[in-house]
This record gives sequence, structure tokens and C-alpha cells, in this order.
Amino acid sequence: MTATPATGPSAATIAAIQEKAKRLSILSMMATTAAGSGHPTSCMSAAELMAGTFFYAMKLDPKNANSPDADRFVLSKGHAAPVLYAAFAEAGVFPESRLMTLRQFSSELEGHPTPLIPGVDAATGSLGQGLSVGAGLAIGARMDKSPTRVYVLMGDGEMAEGQVWEAAEFAGYYKLDNLTVLADVNALGQSQPTMYQHDMEIYRKKFEAEGWAAEVIDGHDVAAVLAALDRAKATKGRPQAILAQTIKGHGVSSIAGKPNWHGKAIPKDQLAAAIEQIGPAIQVPADPGKSYARPSLPKPPDFPAPAEPDYDPSKPVATREAYGFALKRLGAVNSNIVAISGDVKNSTFSEIFGDAYPDHFYQGYIAEQNMVSVGVGLAARGKVPFLDSFACFLSRAYDQVRMAAISRSNINLCGSHCGISIGEDGPSQMALEDLASFRAIHGSAVFYPSDAISTERLTETMARRPGINYLRTSRPKTAILYSKNEKFPVPGFKVLRQSAQDKATVIGAGVTLHEALKAADQLKAEGIAVRVIDLYCVKPLDGKALAEQIGATAGRLITVEDHWPEGGIGEAVLAALASVGAAPAKSKLIAVTEMPHSGKPEELIEAFGLSAKHIAEAVRAIIA
Amino acid sequence: MTATPATGPSAATIAAIQEKAKRLSILSMMATTAAGSGHPTSCMSAAELMAGTFFYAMKLDPKNANSPDADRFVLSKGHAAPVLYAAFAEAGVFPESRLMTLRQFSSELEGHPTPLIPGVDAATGSLGQGLSVGAGLAIGARMDKSPTRVYVLMGDGEMAEGQVWEAAEFAGYYKLDNLTVLADVNALGQSQPTMYQHDMEIYRKKFEAEGWAAEVIDGHDVAAVLAALDRAKATKGRPQAILAQTIKGHGVSSIAGKPNWHGKAIPKDQLAAAIEQIGPAIQVPADPGKSYARPSLPKPPDFPAPAEPDYDPSKPVATREAYGFALKRLGAVNSNIVAISGDVKNSTFSEIFGDAYPDHFYQGYIAEQNMVSVGVGLAARGKVPFLDSFACFLSRAYDQVRMAAISRSNINLCGSHCGISIGEDGPSQMALEDLASFRAIHGSAVFYPSDAISTERLTETMARRPGINYLRTSRPKTAILYSKNEKFPVPGFKVLRQSAQDKATVIGAGVTLHEALKAADQLKAEGIAVRVIDLYCVKPLDGKALAEQIGATAGRLITVEDHWPEGGIGEAVLAALASVGAAPAKSKLIAVTEMPHSGKPEELIEAFGLSAKHIAEAVRAIIA
Repeated sequence: MTATPATGPSAATIAAIQEKAKRLSILSMMATTAAGSGHPTSCMSAAELMAGTFFYAMKLDPKNANSPDADRFVLSKGHAAPVLYAAFAEAGVFPESRLMTLRQFSSELEGHPTPLIPGVDAATGSLGQGLSVGAGLAIGARMDKSPTRVYVLMGDGEMAEGQVWEAAEFAGYYKLDNLTVLADVNALGQSQPTMYQHDMEIYRKKFEAEGWAAEVIDGHDVAAVLAALDRAKATKGRPQAILAQTIKGHGVSSIAGKPNWHGKAIPKDQLAAAIEQIGPAIQVPADPGKSYARPSLPKPPDFPAPAEPDYDPSKPVATREAYGFALKRLGAVNSNIVAISGDVKNSTFSEIFGDAYPDHFYQGYIAEQNMVSVGVGLAARGKVPFLDSFACFLSRAYDQVRMAAISRSNINLCGSHCGISIGEDGPSQMALEDLASFRAIHGSAVFYPSDAISTERLTETMARRPGINYLRTSRPKTAILYSKNEKFPVPGFKVLRQSAQDKATVIGAGVTLHEALKAADQLKAEGIAVRVIDLYCVKPLDGKALAEQIGATAGRLITVEDHWPEGGIGEAVLAALASVGAAPAKSKLIAVTEMPHSGKPEELIEAFGLSAKHIAEAVRAIIA
Repeated sequence: MTATPATGPSAATIAAIQEKAKRLSILSMMATTAAGSGHPTSCMSAAELMAGTFFYAMKLDPKNANSPDADRFVLSKGHAAPVLYAAFAEAGVFPESRLMTLRQFSSELEGHPTPLIPGVDAATGSLGQGLSVGAGLAIGARMDKSPTRVYVLMGDGEMAEGQVWEAAEFAGYYKLDNLTVLADVNALGQSQPTMYQHDMEIYRKKFEAEGWAAEVIDGHDVAAVLAALDRAKATKGRPQAILAQTIKGHGVSSIAGKPNWHGKAIPKDQLAAAIEQIGPAIQVPADPGKSYARPSLPKPPDFPAPAEPDYDPSKPVATREAYGFALKRLGAVNSNIVAISGDVKNSTFSEIFGDAYPDHFYQGYIAEQNMVSVGVGLAARGKVPFLDSFACFLSRAYDQVRMAAISRSNINLCGSHCGISIGEDGPSQMALEDLASFRAIHGSAVFYPSDAISTERLTETMARRPGINYLRTSRPKTAILYSKNEKFPVPGFKVLRQSAQDKATVIGAGVTLHEALKAADQLKAEGIAVRVIDLYCVKPLDGKALAEQIGATAGRLITVEDHWPEGGIGEAVLAALASVGAAPAKSKLIAVTEMPHSGKPEELIEAFGLSAKHIAEAVRAIIA
């Protein structure tokens, strides 16, 4: 299956690949007709590209389809899943009979690819993300000095997504010559022709502007496809784009190049005639056999304990800065850690890690979508990515985080500068929705430390925990609250003020925890004892443990958060209590309820109701 | 202030603009030093571009700075706010003395621009969004046959954002020749040099590939700036990019082109010397005077009642389809409505509107970020944008929606294909986090209709309601529940099953409401009466009214939603109850808790615990 670029493929090779392409088209039609839905036409435009890539260019390992030493393939246009599954089947990853289970409830062969399918590194189906994933796989392979090459098949419709061009910038900038894009330019989107239709030169200019080697071919000419794949493989110093002019539904006259055939299976009674136009019918055993779902998905590799934090307990440290120190300490004991920053490493403090481990740090520039999906690619190679920006700008990559969860990816995100406590920069730089959005990511953990020690410990926890981990860090310096040996289990919280006389429980995190502690001290002077809880882990929550604490304070609950009321700490606590059949007797959920503006952090904390004064008032009101 | 392209600007004009540029630089330094924070160096690189644009090219209306008939300016690199404020002050929009209130708690002149400042159409500060806003302003001006021209100042750092290239595609495709970009390429990002530094040809190639007229100039050569602005204005049939090579901190030797000066004010004791390098010192009155904040922001224009819905009450209709019919009916009575679809108009059914009002419909292609920010630009001109995609893909534009809220923008979003009930396409196409994310947008309304009539009424409500409105529509056809004259107030809900014997309250919406109704019928046959509530409006909620209903059923509450548990209906209801001092006596919040996969809708609703059977079981358990 290895090309011989000097002489080019033989006529026999070309004919064999052509036959493979026909089989991929036919199997795609058969599987979608059996399912009664799906995207056969989007498969057929890519059949020759897929056949050439899988059975001529790629080094495959069918018995270990996710091997990082084999070449990798990302189907960015995820709706063409059937042609990918057909290629895996033809390659021997699973039997062709499985293809006829496409889209069924019990099948691993879903409507769009997920990593439950052997050979798939990341879920696709939200368009425009695959090239970034491929760039992550490619840059990870380079770090590993692996000869792995990465192929990404994209559609032209998805090339309208900005993320594609973020990825093209990134791959061009880092000269990822182990990365090849195959662009299946079939000129038809879902609802109408694509923006540029078959104006192939526009795509060529765009990739070339980013420093890529780009060429235009006829995507249904197998000899041209193989020659282009050979040239791509021989290209040094830059990624390669093979821009293939194709026809949606190629090979079947009734659907080829026709609008209104997007996402439609060929009716059962038309299938035989359609297949006949392409090649001989394929017989597939009726018994689809057992599921071929991957039994287990990668976990972050284990590593020894890092060095202990070494802060002066008397000196305040911003949690954002502690994150940088924590990453550096982890870097010393875990060579899989890779950090990327969206041009804010000097604000999020990942530069502390980057300066210590420059080969494990990438500048992601101001392109958060690409940064997150590159992380997914890195994680698929067993790296432990830590991706950072201001927390508000991670909202730019919310769809990418969502897809990372569907990818069962292990990625870590650090969002700094949360809430109104950033001060003068104003609301565009204040994350007030990140707890809500990251909580609503399946399997996520959401950490919100209030001091440097807990930040360090939680950063370590992130490196060990599978799934999507989010760390919310704050801009202001805050006092050290814990000794360096304190443990921070997940789920968990810390009770920082406690007595048998406690009249109410106040739950905070970040700057609001420090305000709550101040409030507790003020109230104590008035003879009112309150319990104060550091909710360092906002998700998952231990409802039973919380209910015990709140129950011990007559069921009176006050939460206070530097976040909108929706989906944050207050709602999380109420839901956790409800999950164990509990509810507060009385509650007050303090949060930011008006649009903030610029000002000094302390002015804003006061004006928007998060200060010790407001917390103390809430306590007095709730016990009245 | 109008250019004379035939002869070009006189030497006197050039000298006058040069003086303006110096004043803008000096005022930017003064304001940031007074504030003690901010981005003077990012202002200084743009001073000549700003002076040329404001005082040579643009038609300004200082007394009515937001006039849609005057030319518009968008500062995409929002951190250069001081130079924008200085330009407004120099133009007479407000006195220069106001500039010294920059970033103060009491000032309208925030760290980044917001529309509270006269002359600002949209908030900026999350980079890479301004060109899309400008494209929206420009395409709106074209719809209005207005001679308005739109200028957008971008930084080179933000040109790494994919959204910039989505906007460039959009503006090129729609040939927006009333749109001019000024790219301030100062080669320094926040944390290090930008990706392409001063390789200006890369930017030129990228814009030209998108069909723009692009030229490279020395951004500190005023004559070159004015000549480029003249050529831009004279260009027909394509948008124009003036790519200006500049120096960050230009004019002051100690900071010009130096790294580590991003976002730092010049220390007070160095200010006079810095100013001296640029020009004569500026005296500003010590009294900053009153706030110049805009007293009111635009509301959606009023319009007559649309035609009544005309569904056959016996035939099920998908809410996504009713949305299309509703938009068409609104189009007949509201000429301000503009719909944009992210290449899914045949799935979200906005094509029903588009076919009827093709001049008010734009194909947004697969570029959701640009679509939302274009909507913000349209709304700033008084249009009523309706923007659609699959609900899951609107997560791609979460940061843009966040910024729309800070812009106090009036935009409407429709997300179709929510939840697991879409079936075979699998999790990448299922929105399970959209209630959480849209609820956490300040001032948003979140509507989740369960039948065609409520969809129609809520779509009308969206066109009338200021702020961010989100409509969650479903893929499956559902029964008509309401008569065509039913009203759907905001906040509000409908009690669809009710008796004095009700043992529990079940709250649902969309497919889960229909499952709840089925469950109620099954339980009735067993002699168990339950109250069923249609929560068509998920935000805002009337906690008191909900508490009354739940109180009437012994405080027993069951919520059921096609959404993750976090931030959705269950948490919203608990928080609304808590806000009025109530809590359910017993509760069960049913939601999707495992990662879904492909399958038939009914299989998934059953398997993931949302079906009538599961609801009935929950009722039996809660009353046991």
C-alpha cells in the first residue's frame, strides 16, 4: 500500500483503487438505504478520494485501528460517515456486514462518526472542526517523532467556517508537513449551492496564502488523486491541500449534481438501478454480527506526584498565577502535558510553564476554536492538553468543547479573568456564563479555586481526570487559605467557618468566598455565627454532604457567585440538594443580575451586590 | 470633510489630518494614564488611520452620532477604545474633558466600547467580531438604499480569528462595496509578535481571495492613508481592505514597537516626556462634566398584528416548520424583518419566509459566528433579525451572542433539532446545552414551544421584545395543543391538565410535554390525577405562579426535559421557586444523563428516560 513516487502508480494499481472507490460508493448507498436516512450523495463525491487515501496513501493498521504509529484519518465532513465506515470495512477493521446496521439504535455505526468506532480519533458532525483535530494529531506526532501522517477529508460547505482558516493558519505557521487535506468540493451545500461552487482557484489562493502546498485536481480521476497523494507525501516543510473538484452523488445519473439530494437515502426500489450504474452489486451477509464498539477509550496517563506548592502563606496570590506555577510543577513529572494559549499566556500565566517547557507549549494566537480542537487531536494521541484563554473567550469554542465531550476526549481548559472582579476592562472581558456553559458539558468537571494551594491541587487533578475539565481562575490576588498538604477530593468542598451555633450556610468560591469570610467575621462580631463553604468543585457535587451542612444551619442557604444567576453555583446547589430529596428551608441566591461596566474591582463587587456587606445583609434577612 | 478623489487631498488637508492624528495619540495616552490602565500603544498605531477615517473620509453627524444616514464606524479592536473616544470628542460628540473619566466607575467611557457611548453601534472587546457587525450595518444600509458607508478598524492580532474570514467571505460574496476595512497591522499581539508580523502580502492575498479590493500602505503616512480612503470610496462592486503597516506605540521612542507594552498605561511621571515626542501638550478642563451615556437604546419597531395561524387542529406539525410559517406571516406586516440561515433553511424552515420575501433573506452559509454578528449590525440599523441554525450549532456563536447582550442588541435566534428526539443523526446534531447557555445570557428570553400555535405566537413575541430572544424548536411533528386565539404572555406557562385531586405537578416542554400528557392519561386510568404544565417560556419565569401550582399538588414537582440536567428546565424552576421563598416538598428532575447515540426518536426517548412510561413511574414514586 505504499506509493512509489518516482514512477507513480501502475495502471493495475489505478484500476484496483478505482474498484475500491466503486465499492465505497455502493456500500454507502446500501447502508443509507438500509437505514432509511443519511447522506449517500456526500459519500459518493468523496469515493475516489477515500479509496486513494485509504488503499494507496495511508499506512493502516486494521487490527489496531487507533494505533498512533499508523497514519490517521479525520472525516471532517462527518455526515459522509458511511463512506468512512465502508473504508474501514474494506480495510478489514470490521466486517462489511456491520455497515448495514448504520444509524440503528444498537449499532456503533452512528449517523456521524464517534470514537466508539475503531479507527475514529474524534467525533465529527459539527462542521469545520476536523482540520484542527488533524493539526493536533499532526503536531502531536511530530512531538513524538512519529512518522505518522494525518489525512483530513473536508467538504466545501464547511470551508465557510472560520475555524477551518484558523486551522489552516495554525498548520501553515507550524509547517505541519505531515498533514494533508483532501477537499471534496462538490459545490452543493445542504440548502443550495456553496458560496464558491466550483471556483477552485479561490480555495487554492486561500490555502496558499496560509503557506500550504495546494493543487486542484479532478476528484473523480483516480490517477490524478493518486498522483496528488504522492506529491503531498513528498512535500517537505508545509502542509498540503488537495482540492478536488467533485460531483455530489457522482456515478448515478438521477442524483449526480442534483440539488435537493442532500441528506437523503436512495429509496429501496431505486437502489438496484442506482448500484448498476456504478458497478457490480455487492453481497453482504444478512447477519451483521456483534458490535465492534471500542471496549475502552483512552485515559490520561498516570504520573508521579509533582513537587509541593511553595507559597508564602502570608502573601496573596492570584489563582490565575498559581495555575501557571502548578502547570510548571506538573511538567516536571508528566512529559505528556502540552499547553496552548490563545495569545494571553502572560495573563493566564501559562507562560510560566511555557518558559520552562518550550517544546511542550504552543502559541495558539487569537483563535480559540482551533485551540480547543487541536487539543482534542493531541488528547487522541495520549497527550494531556491544557488550553487557556480569558474565561469569556472560551465561549468562542463552546461548540468545540461540546464536540470534545462527544469525542470522549480528555482535555483541560483554564479560563482566567472570571466575573466582574476583573474591574476596569468592562463586561466584554468578564466571564459571567462560564459556570453555566461548562456545567452543561457531559461528563465535565468544573473547578473554581479560591486560593493558590487549591488551584495547584485541582490543576493536578485535571491532569489525572478523564473527560472535560474546566478551571475557573480569577484576576485579583487572594489570600492563601490552605496548607500545602490539603487534599481537594472530587466531588468535595471545604467548610471554612463552622460552629454548633451556625444560623445559616454561606457558599462561595473565588472572590465571593473571600467576601463570605469577611462577612462571617463581621457577623461574628454581632454574635451571629455562620457556616462558610468553599465550593472549589462546582461539578460534580455531593448533594448529600451539602444537605448535611445546610441542614445543620436550620436549612438556611445563601450562595454568592461572580456569575449570572442562571446555571451557576446557586442553581447547582439547589439541584444537588433536590437530587437527594432535600431543599433549603430558606434560601437566597446572590449573583450578578445587572449588566456590569468598568470600575475598580472593589467598586464593582460592592455595586453589583457581591460584597461582604451584601452577604451579611442577606444573612441577617434570612435569619430574621 | 468630503474627499475630492480627482485631485486628492491638499497639502493643507494632509497637515490638518496629521495634527488630528497627533491629538488622538496624545489624548489616548492622557486618558489611559489618568485611568492607570488601558491600551495606549494600540491606540497610537491607529492614530493616522483613525484621523483620516473620521476627519477626512467619513460623513459624521456629531449631534446625532448614531444616525443611520451618517457613515458608521466599528472599532473591532475594542481595546483601542481611547482613540475612538478621542475621535468622537474631537468630532464634537462629547467634550474632550470626558476622556479623562476613562474606565471610571461613573463614566460611560468603559474599557471597551459599548453602545451606551454615543456613536457606538455594538460592543466590541471580544476580538474578531467587528467586521461581521460592519457587514451587517453595510448590508442593512444597502437594503435601505442609504448612502451610508461603514468603516471597520481591525487589529492584526484579531485577524487570526476565523470569524474575520467568515465576515470577509460574506462581504465579498454579497459585494458590499459600502464597507471598508482598515487593518492596523502593528505586528505585536498581547503576549508576543503576531503570526505574520509585518508580512503584509499574506493579508493582501487573503482579502483578495475573498474578492476584496486590497492594498498595503504605510499606516503612519497620512497622505497614503487619505489616498487609500479615496480609492476605497471610489471602488464599486467589492469591499475594500486598507492594510496598514504600523508600529505599536508609534511616536514615542521608549515604547514604539516594543514588546511588553501591550495593555499598559504610561506611568504618570513619563507622560509629559512621551507627549512631547508627538506634539504640543493638550489642555483639558479639569471638570469632566456630566455623563454622555445614551439615554435610551433602540427597541424593535412596532408593527400590526400578523394574520392568524391556520393549522388544521387535527394534523401534527413540527414546531420548526411552524417557525417558518410564522416568519412568513410576520413578513407581511413587518418590513424590518430580515432572516439569515446557516445553510439549513430547508431544515429550520426559514425558507418559507425566504421564498416569500427573498429581498429580506440572506444565505449565511455554514458560518454561525458571522451570522450572529451580522444580525447585531442589522439590529443596530433598526432591522429585526431572525437567525437560524440547528440549536447545537448556535453554540458556535456563543461568544457572539454574549457580546450581542453587551451590545444591548435586539436579535432573535431560532435553534432547531433540539435534544435526543432528532434521532438517527446522533449526538453531534443534538442540542442538549442550549437552554443552559441561552438562559445565561443577560436579559435573554428563552422560548420552547410544544405546538405550532404557540410557536407562531412566540415568534411574534420575539419580533416585539427587546434583547436576545431564543426559540428552541423540535424536529418531530407534534399535535396542535391550542386554539389559534390563545395568548402566550411572557413570563407564563399553560396548565394543560388540572383537577382538585392532583397529586403532583409535571412540567415539560417540546416532546417531553407530549410525553407528560400521555403519562397523565395513563395515570388517570390508574386513578392518579396529575397537573401538567407547558413551560413554553423557560426564561423569564414567574416563580410565584409556579409555586402556587406546585403548592396545589402537595409540593410535589417533576420536571422532564430533552436537555442535560445542568442549567435547564429543572434548575430554572427550582431557582424560580427559591426566588419567592418556595421549594418543592419532593422533586424529581428528569433529563438526559448519559451520552446519547443514534436511533429512532421514540427509541431514544424511551432509552434515555424521557418517555411517558418514565414520567409515570416518577409520579408513582413521588407520591408513594
